[in-house]
Amino acid sequence: MSAQNLSAAKDLARLNIDIDRIHELAESLLPVYAQIELGESLSDPELNHALSELVAVVHDLHPADMATVLESLPLQERVLVWKLGAPEEDGEVLLEVSEPVRETLIESMGQTELLAAVDDLDADELAELAPDLPHEVVFEALSTRDEEERAQVAAAMSFEDDQVGGIMDFELVSIRADVTCEVVLRYLRRFDSLPDHTDKIFVVDDDDVLQGVLPIRKLLVADPDTLVADVMATDVVLFHPEDDVEEAAQAFERYDLVTAPVVDTAQKLIGRITVDEMVDVIREEGEADMLNMAGLKEEEDLFAPIMDSVKNRWVWLAINLCTAFVASRVIGAFEGSIEKIVALAALMPIVAGIGGNSGNQTITMIVRAMATGQLTGSQALHLLRKELGVATVNGLLWGSVMGAVSWILYGNLGIGLVMVAAMTLNLLLAATLGVLIPVWMDKFGRDPALGSSVLITAVTDSGGFLIFLGLATVFLL
Amino acid sequence: MSAQNLSAAKDLARLNIDIDRIHELAESLLPVYAQIELGESLSDPELNHALSELVAVVHDLHPADMATVLESLPLQERVLVWKLGAPEEDGEVLLEVSEPVRETLIESMGQTELLAAVDDLDADELAELAPDLPHEVVFEALSTRDEEERAQVAAAMSFEDDQVGGIMDFELVSIRADVTCEVVLRYLRRFDSLPDHTDKIFVVDDDDVLQGVLPIRKLLVADPDTLVADVMATDVVLFHPEDDVEEAAQAFERYDLVTAPVVDTAQKLIGRITVDEMVDVIREEGEADMLNMAGLKEEEDLFAPIMDSVKNRWVWLAINLCTAFVASRVIGAFEGSIEKIVALAALMPIVAGIGGNSGNQTITMIVRAMATGQLTGSQALHLLRKELGVATVNGLLWGSVMGAVSWILYGNLGIGLVMVAAMTLNLLLAATLGVLIPVWMDKFGRDPALGSSVLITAVTDSGGFLIFLGLATVFLL
Repeated sequence: MSAQNLSAAKDLARLNIDIDRIHELAESLLPVYAQIELGESLSDPELNHALSELVAVVHDLHPADMATVLESLPLQERVLVWKLGAPEEDGEVLLEVSEPVRETLIESMGQTELLAAVDDLDADELAELAPDLPHEVVFEALSTRDEEERAQVAAAMSFEDDQVGGIMDFELVSIRADVTCEVVLRYLRRFDSLPDHTDKIFVVDDDDVLQGVLPIRKLLVADPDTLVADVMATDVVLFHPEDDVEEAAQAFERYDLVTAPVVDTAQKLIGRITVDEMVDVIREEGEADMLNMAGLKEEEDLFAPIMDSVKNRWVWLAINLCTAFVASRVIGAFEGSIEKIVALAALMPIVAGIGGNSGNQTITMIVRAMATGQLTGSQALHLLRKELGVATVNGLLWGSVMGAVSWILYGNLGIGLVMVAAMTLNLLLAATLGVLIPVWMDKFGRDPALGSSVLITAVTDSGGFLIFLGLATVFLL
Repeated sequence: MSAQNLSAAKDLARLNIDIDRIHELAESLLPVYAQIELGESLSDPELNHALSELVAVVHDLHPADMATVLESLPLQERVLVWKLGAPEEDGEVLLEVSEPVRETLIESMGQTELLAAVDDLDADELAELAPDLPHEVVFEALSTRDEEERAQVAAAMSFEDDQVGGIMDFELVSIRADVTCEVVLRYLRRFDSLPDHTDKIFVVDDDDVLQGVLPIRKLLVADPDTLVADVMATDVVLFHPEDDVEEAAQAFERYDLVTAPVVDTAQKLIGRITVDEMVDVIREEGEADMLNMAGLKEEEDLFAPIMDSVKNRWVWLAINLCTAFVASRVIGAFEGSIEKIVALAALMPIVAGIGGNSGNQTITMIVRAMATGQLTGSQALHLLRKELGVATVNGLLWGSVMGAVSWILYGNLGIGLVMVAAMTLNLLLAATLGVLIPVWMDKFGRDPALGSSVLITAVTDSGGFLIFLGLATVFLL
């Protein structure tokens, strides 16, 4: 029996999706897309073969894998593959893809297709898709649901994506505290299936007010005659719908939670959040910090039309251009000095460059520490002292190296000494602002990651030019 | 009953740790650290009060919160707070902190303390700490364990941290396929407690070969007389100990897993991995990418001694210095041109800067897409075409703006036109290498995030200077 049974098991090698093959097949089928869409049979046997292979591969994909495939295909191929997928999984796939890709998929679908896709979704899932769906579709979809579900959709939609209320679900299994574990087990057996991730059952009173939770792990080892009240845990980690999802995710991570109850101000149980949503939050948070530091506004469809990408990136490019212009004017103020010692023009980018690099190291470390809650304002001074120490060591060390090289290159000891001084001072400037920029941003309620890399580079560029050219003007002319 | 019960519940507001207060208390107690360590009573009533408050706060902390507190304290305060914590949780805390901080904590402990700390740990946890512990402690700790546990420790230690075998645990609950669900429930009741995160029971044959898994969700709703074989799932997602943990984490994320079995080549069950470990992997992966892009070697203790930080950062600073030197020599080659038109010196950093900024946007997006498995080599060409389109639009747009500004500023139309051309060309260079650098790195088996920001900036700096000064020399002189 063993071998047969486990033939259905999947290890990583079998989970690997051959995106390249799908891309190849889809590309070859693009010329006959019109025929495929009309359901006409293809005359070319080779293309016909490619189509059957593609359909077989795509139908075999888990919705999450289908989402990955769609994200990684150029627009036309994406729509082709999307049309070939199993329609009953369309809703799940729409939930899994990123928002820009979701928009491209929804655009390609008719109203009937969309309605079919969202028909099987839970209330919280429908609420998640609703902002991207045409109004008529949402209206139609809601009209087939009962009163309770409509209220759940409305409740979920009244919260932002970054609030616990926006990602909670309503698949609650709840019991009273005054029954025995035996009764609970019999009650559970009446379900067709328990909700995903059920690791605890919520214990509520007659008004749905949360009393505690009964972990399944405890239920299974408990004496059947014990009362729930005597087994349940009351030191519950719980959330309110207004809570920040990133903080909730940190709590899940710290306390190794799988599910947690969401209650209103009267402690009434209204929903639950699950670890799979939290994993997505953690992944997205890391990505958002990375994108924000580089000055990308938001998640971008890899294959977005050119003008969409331009729009997503123009703000930080414009800011960068302004700061570069300031740096350029700083140099402009020293044109007289550069005319006299043209070597200054060649050496100044070194001073600016090392400051930018070092400042980015500091600011990245601080942004990371803030994201994990390790850094609060009161330690900023201590950290600043340390970073200034690192900057002094690096400045004297690397400054001396470059100073010596400049001395040899230009046969001018003065230039070498100015290099040492300028590099050390610019590293000190980079360390100071590398600590202070994120601390200030946080203080004023801004995301410390947002464009911090662009900002610190701006400071170290203008500052580096000013320090180097200023010192050179004072001491060398 | 309701109100009393839930008084033990914790929402986010109550979970918030007052790190600032702990820092304040610890700082005030530092002068009497010697007395505290000796257990002497403090003569100053105010300090005595501070000590009691600190002990109370620290004893109340969950091990994961204690870890966060320790990470965010300067060295001396960290050791003080560490000594005041509940000794029975020392092992858990050591597992939670980052490696550099763990080292500082272990250094402050004696052999007896360390032995006591690791005494309660599971085999996999002991294996995780072992590389950081003194040899004698590991030897002592192993000598008190039975044969099976020693074998487990050895097995876990034979894998790297980035392999599934390095993070699996051995808390397995397994059953045979030919018993009824009723028997399983009775069997489970004999446990004192089930392992954390138990969402499924592993079904094995007499040789421990995995046959399938019995999800608890199914067990609870199944008819008690049904055979396990008829309820169990056989399309199990399973892992091998040599598997890459990041790939395993992606599988957990895609398939919303809570636990998964680890089997050897003969499909024999040897361990399991749990979602809480995977959450850590996902968090660390995002952080590592961010740190690597900025050119930080590894996770750094915020309060590391200055020389440790210098060591952690010097490699990329040195590389940056080399590339800056190359850029400087490029400028040096055009010193004649700059002497004639000194405005070139002021304008050239604008060309280099916008290239660096735009290149970083492109490379960050590509690195992120590669990390989530959305990008494979075959789409590189398609992406390159798109990025070149974005670069052309941005180059002509922002190039014209800066070209016009330069024209007005220096009253020289030629300089303006050279600016437009140079900015467009440098953006095209940034787009090309922003796509190709990570694709190449990946092709040669390197981490695409590693120092990619430093590399792209190097190219756009030298390239920008060369293009701008070259065009100026050809057309303006």
